[in-house]
Amino acid sequence: MGIKRKKISVIGGGFTGATTALMLAQKELGDVVLVDIPDMEDPTKGKALDMLEASPVQGFDSNIIGTANYEDTKESDLVIITAGIARKPGMSRDDLVSTNSKIMKSVTKEIVKYSPDCLIVVLTNPVDAMTYSVFQEAGFPKNRVIGQSGVLDTARFRTFVAQELNLSVKDITGFVLGGHGDDMVPLIRYSFAGGIPLEKLISKDRLDAIVERTRKGGGEIVNLLGNGSAYYAPAASLVQMAEAILKDQRRVIPSIAYLEGEYGYEGIYLGVPTILGGNGIEEIIELDLTEEEKAQLDKSADSVKNVLNILQ
Amino acid sequence: MGIKRKKISVIGGGFTGATTALMLAQKELGDVVLVDIPDMEDPTKGKALDMLEASPVQGFDSNIIGTANYEDTKESDLVIITAGIARKPGMSRDDLVSTNSKIMKSVTKEIVKYSPDCLIVVLTNPVDAMTYSVFQEAGFPKNRVIGQSGVLDTARFRTFVAQELNLSVKDITGFVLGGHGDDMVPLIRYSFAGGIPLEKLISKDRLDAIVERTRKGGGEIVNLLGNGSAYYAPAASLVQMAEAILKDQRRVIPSIAYLEGEYGYEGIYLGVPTILGGNGIEEIIELDLTEEEKAQLDKSADSVKNVLNILQ
Amino acid sequence: MGIKRKKISVIGGGFTGATTALMLAQKELGDVVLVDIPDMEDPTKGKALDMLEASPVQGFDSNIIGTANYEDTKESDLVIITAGIARKPGMSRDDLVSTNSKIMKSVTKEIVKYSPDCLIVVLTNPVDAMTYSVFQEAGFPKNRVIGQSGVLDTARFRTFVAQELNLSVKDITGFVLGGHGDDMVPLIRYSFAGGIPLEKLISKDRLDAIVERTRKGGGEIVNLLGNGSAYYAPAASLVQMAEAILKDQRRVIPSIAYLEGEYGYEGIYLGVPTILGGNGIEEIIELDLTEEEKAQLDKSADSVKNVLNILQ
Amino acid sequence: MGIKRKKISVIGGGFTGATTALMLAQKELGDVVLVDIPDMEDPTKGKALDMLEASPVQGFDSNIIGTANYEDTKESDLVIITAGIARKPGMSRDDLVSTNSKIMKSVTKEIVKYSPDCLIVVLTNPVDAMTYSVFQEAGFPKNRVIGQSGVLDTARFRTFVAQELNLSVKDITGFVLGGHGDDMVPLIRYSFAGGIPLEKLISKDRLDAIVERTRKGGGEIVNLLGNGSAYYAPAASLVQMAEAILKDQRRVIPSIAYLEGEYGYEGIYLGVPTILGGNGIEEIIELDLTEEEKAQLDKSADSVKNVLNILQ
Repeated sequence: MGIKRKKISVIGGGFTGATTALMLAQKELGDVVLVDIPDMEDPTKGKALDMLEASPVQGFDSNIIGTANYEDTKESDLVIITAGIARKPGMSRDDLVSTNSKIMKSVTKEIVKYSPDCLIVVLTNPVDAMTYSVFQEAGFPKNRVIGQSGVLDTARFRTFVAQELNLSVKDITGFVLGGHGDDMVPLIRYSFAGGIPLEKLISKDRLDAIVERTRKGGGEIVNLLGNGSAYYAPAASLVQMAEAILKDQRRVIPSIAYLEGEYGYEGIYLGVPTILGGNGIEEIIELDLTEEEKAQLDKSADSVKNVLNILQ
Repeated sequence: MGIKRKKISVIGGGFTGATTALMLAQKELGDVVLVDIPDMEDPTKGKALDMLEASPVQGFDSNIIGTANYEDTKESDLVIITAGIARKPGMSRDDLVSTNSKIMKSVTKEIVKYSPDCLIVVLTNPVDAMTYSVFQEAGFPKNRVIGQSGVLDTARFRTFVAQELNLSVKDITGFVLGGHGDDMVPLIRYSFAGGIPLEKLISKDRLDAIVERTRKGGGEIVNLLGNGSAYYAPAASLVQMAEAILKDQRRVIPSIAYLEGEYGYEGIYLGVPTILGGNGIEEIIELDLTEEEKAQLDKSADSVKNVLNILQ
Repeated sequence: MGIKRKKISVIGGGFTGATTALMLAQKELGDVVLVDIPDMEDPTKGKALDMLEASPVQGFDSNIIGTANYEDTKESDLVIITAGIARKPGMSRDDLVSTNSKIMKSVTKEIVKYSPDCLIVVLTNPVDAMTYSVFQEAGFPKNRVIGQSGVLDTARFRTFVAQELNLSVKDITGFVLGGHGDDMVPLIRYSFAGGIPLEKLISKDRLDAIVERTRKGGGEIVNLLGNGSAYYAPAASLVQMAEAILKDQRRVIPSIAYLEGEYGYEGIYLGVPTILGGNGIEEIIELDLTEEEKAQLDKSADSVKNVLNILQ
Repeated sequence: MGIKRKKISVIGGGFTGATTALMLAQKELGDVVLVDIPDMEDPTKGKALDMLEASPVQGFDSNIIGTANYEDTKESDLVIITAGIARKPGMSRDDLVSTNSKIMKSVTKEIVKYSPDCLIVVLTNPVDAMTYSVFQEAGFPKNRVIGQSGVLDTARFRTFVAQELNLSVKDITGFVLGGHGDDMVPLIRYSFAGGIPLEKLISKDRLDAIVERTRKGGGEIVNLLGNGSAYYAPAASLVQMAEAILKDQRRVIPSIAYLEGEYGYEGIYLGVPTILGGNGIEEIIELDLTEEEKAQLDKSADSVKNVLNILQ
């Protein structure tokens, strides 16, 4: 008896993980455990403490700790995985995939050991395959292992559209299917400004340019930063998914979900519209696609399968 | 006619400046311009864009841009200065002071050129002296040039007390005078948990330890991070001051203020309790000090004067 | 120089006006002046004081006063009119119109006298005609006099759709044109759940029932309450418009706007999609309508003209 | 498995109950059930629906229903009791006490039947005695039955002090013991503005006047309204207690708690400083009182006992 705060563990204490921890705490979604490898334990503790010291002035009431000890994640309600390496110059894609997959498996083992009832959201790239790795290792029902990509892609798309039309981002919606970045399948016909189809407000040329910019959105930030990749918008995207789950909101959110026949695919994780709530993916929404959209989605699914083949 | 958003410029696009920009935008306090030197223009643009791309999912409606061009700061209501170098191993304190003072002066010149009516809040260390440099260069009335240190020190103190008592940070208050860190003069008798004096709740030994930990609070984070210094709590502290000013809240907040006789000091910037509102420092609150407190404050004032002497 | 809070006056201290005042203060959009007639001065002061006494625990920093003296509204940035009588049994519609129009004129005279530069948002029914009365009396440019109806109608519509689909209201959008309630012209084809057209998710029968329920939404509340009419959702709707204006958000919001040729109408106030920002109605968005929609909108416009004729 | 929203039932659908429901929903503390007697079922449903229709524009994701059927409160985490009659002209105090006590008992029976594990917060006056009635009927451990009075009294006190000093309410704290209103025991020495003792900022005369105004704070609103009593600040006070419990915040909050020896009293409910968290009253904080304070508190305790005697 008695009411307990929710507990959220964020695996990976880099910029994205740390920013995610901050945003979770700011929203008072629960107490936060930021986990990194033993070598990074002190910096992770340092970031967590620095955030905690922001709480009296930011006015949030969430505990945040940094640790390298998975025991601290015990009985988490939600675990968010941001751990993994970024692709470095000269590294083959296969090497990236197999390294990160190994990280997913070792991380998942620990997560499951201490929080057998948790939900898991994965950010690590290539995210469709990494979510699959986590799913396999965890042995959880499919609704409880979810990948992020579409929230971020639509957030970028919405930002660019809002700038194009000089309107509030609050009134812009976007809609994507399929993989992250290049493999993204934008459904412009389901994207609106204040409910008005974007095609009525923006010329085809400009819309194409916005879609293209969205596809390359991650690369745009990488190029500007010169050293590292985006973390504010990725963290915010994870937190939106976390909020939908922790507050059982049943929101319509694009997620990387395990498909068993939906959209014609079997046994892969792919980005599709879902209903996110207290049970994780409560439903996959199936839409009729145009031939062109279906072709793009097939291409996206092929990409995912190619990556998965590396892992066999 | 017509209503315009407030405009806030943050000088210095490092971790503290960037985190400050994010927190300003999250609170929709105005549109934010993040400024750094030409060499850092692209990373600064990258951070700003990444934050902006978080806005659709975080639900805030503030523009954020990165720039190296002060023209973009034109007509700012508030400017926050985080620019400056950190002291590096082997660097003398005098070198730090004179380098940062030069940065303050060049930065202030640009600020004043484009926003002659703005208010300025300074974070750069050593903050008492740097605030003085800005004040001199700006030629603004004293109420419009303000330094931050006490908000951060009390935030750390409150965090440690909340942990000690296992209570919400919301109910813990702290009170400091004087300089930042080592020079901090804590007024424990004005520090409370839910209104109850801390001396009644925490043993003298433990309280002393907490004060000592607060004094070294910046160093604790530096040591943990291994590479760099705190930025979450400093940014949050700046944003609390910004909010008090931009929303004309008349809050009781410790600020580094220009003293003309208050507390017995003349012509220096020193940390004192102030009322912060739409005019910046609207009032300095003078308290009766015990002899011990006054002695500590004198020591703190001497520190400030020693630094100022370097600049003569 | 110095930064001042925004000032918002709410004319009419009944349930809607009072709830509007509360919600404005909760969002710290500015200081609030709640105005009623001299006979109601004390109850209005009582409500304002009671709200103000909620501020320490709700954590908002807005002053709220009740008054019967328009001098207290001086230099308001925004004025919201909720004053007016409700139609009573046995009262002819013409009597309602002419009584409320007189109230609009006397109220507007006072508003303009003390706040010649303000923006005005009108809620009083019949709102299209009452907004017109205010516009005529104020002599303000058309962008600065705005009526509310579509925000409330879509809020109700969104609520019913969210219930039907068991989804978060955050992901449901609706779109209406024309008059309030019975005269509402719903554009279902611009109404979505998570970007997905409602027609794909809800059967035509159920959608028709939801539209019909929305049309009668005000009456449903009146019938349930038994004594009085809705005020929570109307107040929230006013506050959304106020926020868009006071934060210069450029949101896409249905407003009652003065038409000069748009949609084929001249010289009437009618509900249309607009961009609301710091200048009030910054733009009217013109959409292509189907014949059926245009016919419904004509009918709605005729209703408005009929009411206006009463006032000639 | 899966994450569920918290559920909160508010008993009594009058102005206070309804405003409490709104504020709970605005903070997304859980889904809300507003309960009234069968005769008031429709108006209660009407208010709940009106609030729910505000949710799309206010941006909160909480369900709110009105009902007269306690089955709808099933498995509530928290129940707030605002039901009861107000004292009418000509009614003896004894009649008020015994009528409301009967209401408490019948209401509690239903609450316990459907939510045997819930926490209960009581507002109904005379609140010390009514909390006791609920405690007796519920048979719950004492930590799970809590009365409200001190939050409201301090909220009023803080408001008046903020006005006196022209400071933000955020920086004013107050401290009371004992009963509500006239029986309130203010501890001025534990009341501060930005940590500074109020005695240093406000003259004794003015402070006395503020205390006196606080004591009569409920009456001041009653007199102004002319018809009815305060509800905004009482509702906000309940919601602060609810938040502390539902988010397990361990806040220092004055509560009406069951005393078993604390402060020298045995077997009565009386206002004392407590730590409120997920277990309800997690701790009673015992302070040393001056003789004068202790005498006032004795008087307050006597009042409570006198009321309890009516109920024997």
